[in-house]
Amino acid sequence: MTMLQSKHLLNIEDFSNDEILAVLENAKTFKEINERPIKKLPTLRGRTIVNLFLEPSTRTRGSFELAQKRLSADGLNFSASASATTKGESLIDTAQTFDAMKVDMVIVRHKYAGTPYVLTQHMDAHIVNAGDGINEHPTQTILDLFTIQEKLGRIEGLTVGIVGDIVHSRVAGSLAPALKRLGARVIFVAPPAYQPVVPEELGAEVAYDFDAVLPELDVVCLLRIQGERAEGLSVPSIREYASLYGLNKYRADKLMKKDAIIMHPGPMNRGVEISADVIADPRAYILDQVNAGVATRMAIMYMMLGGESGE
Amino acid sequence: MTMLQSKHLLNIEDFSNDEILAVLENAKTFKEINERPIKKLPTLRGRTIVNLFLEPSTRTRGSFELAQKRLSADGLNFSASASATTKGESLIDTAQTFDAMKVDMVIVRHKYAGTPYVLTQHMDAHIVNAGDGINEHPTQTILDLFTIQEKLGRIEGLTVGIVGDIVHSRVAGSLAPALKRLGARVIFVAPPAYQPVVPEELGAEVAYDFDAVLPELDVVCLLRIQGERAEGLSVPSIREYASLYGLNKYRADKLMKKDAIIMHPGPMNRGVEISADVIADPRAYILDQVNAGVATRMAIMYMMLGGESGE
Amino acid sequence: MTMLQSKHLLNIEDFSNDEILAVLENAKTFKEINERPIKKLPTLRGRTIVNLFLEPSTRTRGSFELAQKRLSADGLNFSASASATTKGESLIDTAQTFDAMKVDMVIVRHKYAGTPYVLTQHMDAHIVNAGDGINEHPTQTILDLFTIQEKLGRIEGLTVGIVGDIVHSRVAGSLAPALKRLGARVIFVAPPAYQPVVPEELGAEVAYDFDAVLPELDVVCLLRIQGERAEGLSVPSIREYASLYGLNKYRADKLMKKDAIIMHPGPMNRGVEISADVIADPRAYILDQVNAGVATRMAIMYMMLGGESGE
Repeated sequence: MTMLQSKHLLNIEDFSNDEILAVLENAKTFKEINERPIKKLPTLRGRTIVNLFLEPSTRTRGSFELAQKRLSADGLNFSASASATTKGESLIDTAQTFDAMKVDMVIVRHKYAGTPYVLTQHMDAHIVNAGDGINEHPTQTILDLFTIQEKLGRIEGLTVGIVGDIVHSRVAGSLAPALKRLGARVIFVAPPAYQPVVPEELGAEVAYDFDAVLPELDVVCLLRIQGERAEGLSVPSIREYASLYGLNKYRADKLMKKDAIIMHPGPMNRGVEISADVIADPRAYILDQVNAGVATRMAIMYMMLGGESGE
Repeated sequence: MTMLQSKHLLNIEDFSNDEILAVLENAKTFKEINERPIKKLPTLRGRTIVNLFLEPSTRTRGSFELAQKRLSADGLNFSASASATTKGESLIDTAQTFDAMKVDMVIVRHKYAGTPYVLTQHMDAHIVNAGDGINEHPTQTILDLFTIQEKLGRIEGLTVGIVGDIVHSRVAGSLAPALKRLGARVIFVAPPAYQPVVPEELGAEVAYDFDAVLPELDVVCLLRIQGERAEGLSVPSIREYASLYGLNKYRADKLMKKDAIIMHPGPMNRGVEISADVIADPRAYILDQVNAGVATRMAIMYMMLGGESGE
Repeated sequence: MTMLQSKHLLNIEDFSNDEILAVLENAKTFKEINERPIKKLPTLRGRTIVNLFLEPSTRTRGSFELAQKRLSADGLNFSASASATTKGESLIDTAQTFDAMKVDMVIVRHKYAGTPYVLTQHMDAHIVNAGDGINEHPTQTILDLFTIQEKLGRIEGLTVGIVGDIVHSRVAGSLAPALKRLGARVIFVAPPAYQPVVPEELGAEVAYDFDAVLPELDVVCLLRIQGERAEGLSVPSIREYASLYGLNKYRADKLMKKDAIIMHPGPMNRGVEISADVIADPRAYILDQVNAGVATRMAIMYMMLGGESGE
């Protein structure tokens, strides 16, 4: 198996197009292994991986932990509630401490953008960004690309709509530029208050009218709407958002292409950005994304760490 | 080893009498393994088991985790504090997420009755109920039955008193019907406010006078009294309860059969439902119950999952 | 490998001089293993070790967990937030519960001095104190001794200054007597309010003037200053402390011996007991201490448990 040249995965820009495609290819093998009764490979035996999740998480943390166990790596978990942050230990001290313990890789989620980069400056381990504030979430992008490739057979030439609170979304921040350089057309669909100031920087066009743009889309990526953020801002109410931008049965049946696919990074707000019946639409591959998450993370960790072994 | 036909263990009714007896028989082997210096079998290698404990727990969670490690399964732990419930992820989403990750089994504890059933409706994995509200706690019943069988040589024909807050006890909710259909006589001993409305549904008789019924009992199962619940209800005060229903040295020495046994699911309130000197009574098998917990849970998980392997 | 005669490690007094030296010797091997790509030994396979950390901790808990994984032991983690302490389960019940589960070893951190001793009275497992209140932290002492031995080639005959809030420090409580009986001279450097009432009991001399004593020291062990404790007591303010007792560049360059070493158990308060530039001083071995922590804990757990195996 080809190994990755990139030492870290902080932003999706860290992986070249070839590296992304190699990860997608190798993830197919891991996906097949996850279907077996005995889901276990000895490939990362004796490697130490720290899961540093300083924001609560179920699906991303679970996905990484599972991927580690299935590769036989030794995983170590630290959450905000059980660690010594109450003692005021700084991030730099934490990085240097894990480094001195000879940790091979750190998977980090943090509310502040740039935290994974700070870790790279203070330790030798490979760092994988599992979501840093509103900046990036690159392993989510890899699993999204895997799902698009698997369901539609290609990425190049597709038109992908990313619908929701783009400016506050780390999912959009990683996905849009990756799609762009792999040859897809990206359209941000959102009210003005949710649009980034310079959408071209992310390689995307802008649209305000979901109904007008929906018939063009091959992929509809819905983002989670954070109700709590809407208070007091010049953004629509939840009800207004659902009415204008929610993917409901009418839009899915009447406006969406027959062979387009629906994606959502989860967790979903039923009745806001997606209606319950659309979740059950055969074109919705939201659980396939979760499944791809374990396989692609196995591929990423293996291709970063596997080549260093003497075995 | 015989495998279980039951896919899930939500309620003790999910296991037939033969299945219960087969679990008790196999648990003897696992109990013996737990006495060895090297407590490890390769039988569930590569199987993924999620421990979803959304209520705090030390003994039940520890028991399941240990059982998993000793069978070489890959265990994944989620507690309320470290998971994304703050993001409002629904139980259905959680179920579908773990399902998409190809989890083989979920052990679930939840404050709401029926939660384990909801999981079965949204995922393919085996579900084991580790306590759902005031409904059931079936693996506690299996370890209780193991202890009775081991100490008294049989279950059939015994008279078992379950003493305490029956109506709010998931322990009683599982244990009473199981004892009944395995041929034991069950008596609920409690003040009226702690008695269920229809005790016959659980296969039990009712008694209000502990001193009158104690001489008849072969097994005295004490339940934990939740002091905080007593406020403002028509229930006795803690002091009054201890005086009328607590198993103290006088009752154990003067009223209890010489060969009867004392059980408690833990954690205990010393001086309330049980006095400190009774815990030390040679007829008290409270720690044997804990020991049986690991062995019986190894048997249950192995007999549910082991047969699916190609090995 | 020689095994330890001591069943428990509650206080550093539990280990004889010969045992301490044997641990330091064996830790060299484990340190070398931690440098390998595949950091894994099968030596404690099938052994169950509970990490009972009832105070938050990152570095000590991580160090023990890593050491366990690298020795292939089965580790079980309990923190205050996820365990049933909210149910009022007593420490004695917890001890007896783990004992009944056939746990081989418990690593315990607790805010109350004497907690590890209580555990030894109620279970058969080996108990290792990972910090009990302001009493002792003996595995920290072992890693400190390893670092001194490694960097200076000996312990006997050295002059070691322990600087900071001695009276509230479990680090000092273990380290001072160990250094003393291994032949070092120990000086407590602190303002009167931070000095113990009977320093001779810990085998140490007392000094109030850091600048006067610093030129004599071969080892400078800095302790963390807890800012919050300073309020309302007859102790110096943080600023005053830093000025009188903080190891800053001036002191390190002008007053400290050229071949003396600087140590700190972490986490550090930059600008209080140590300045940022002193952390980067080549004589500072703070991260070497962290590294030694994993190796020495591997040695301790192996030398306590390894000999019991039939393998």
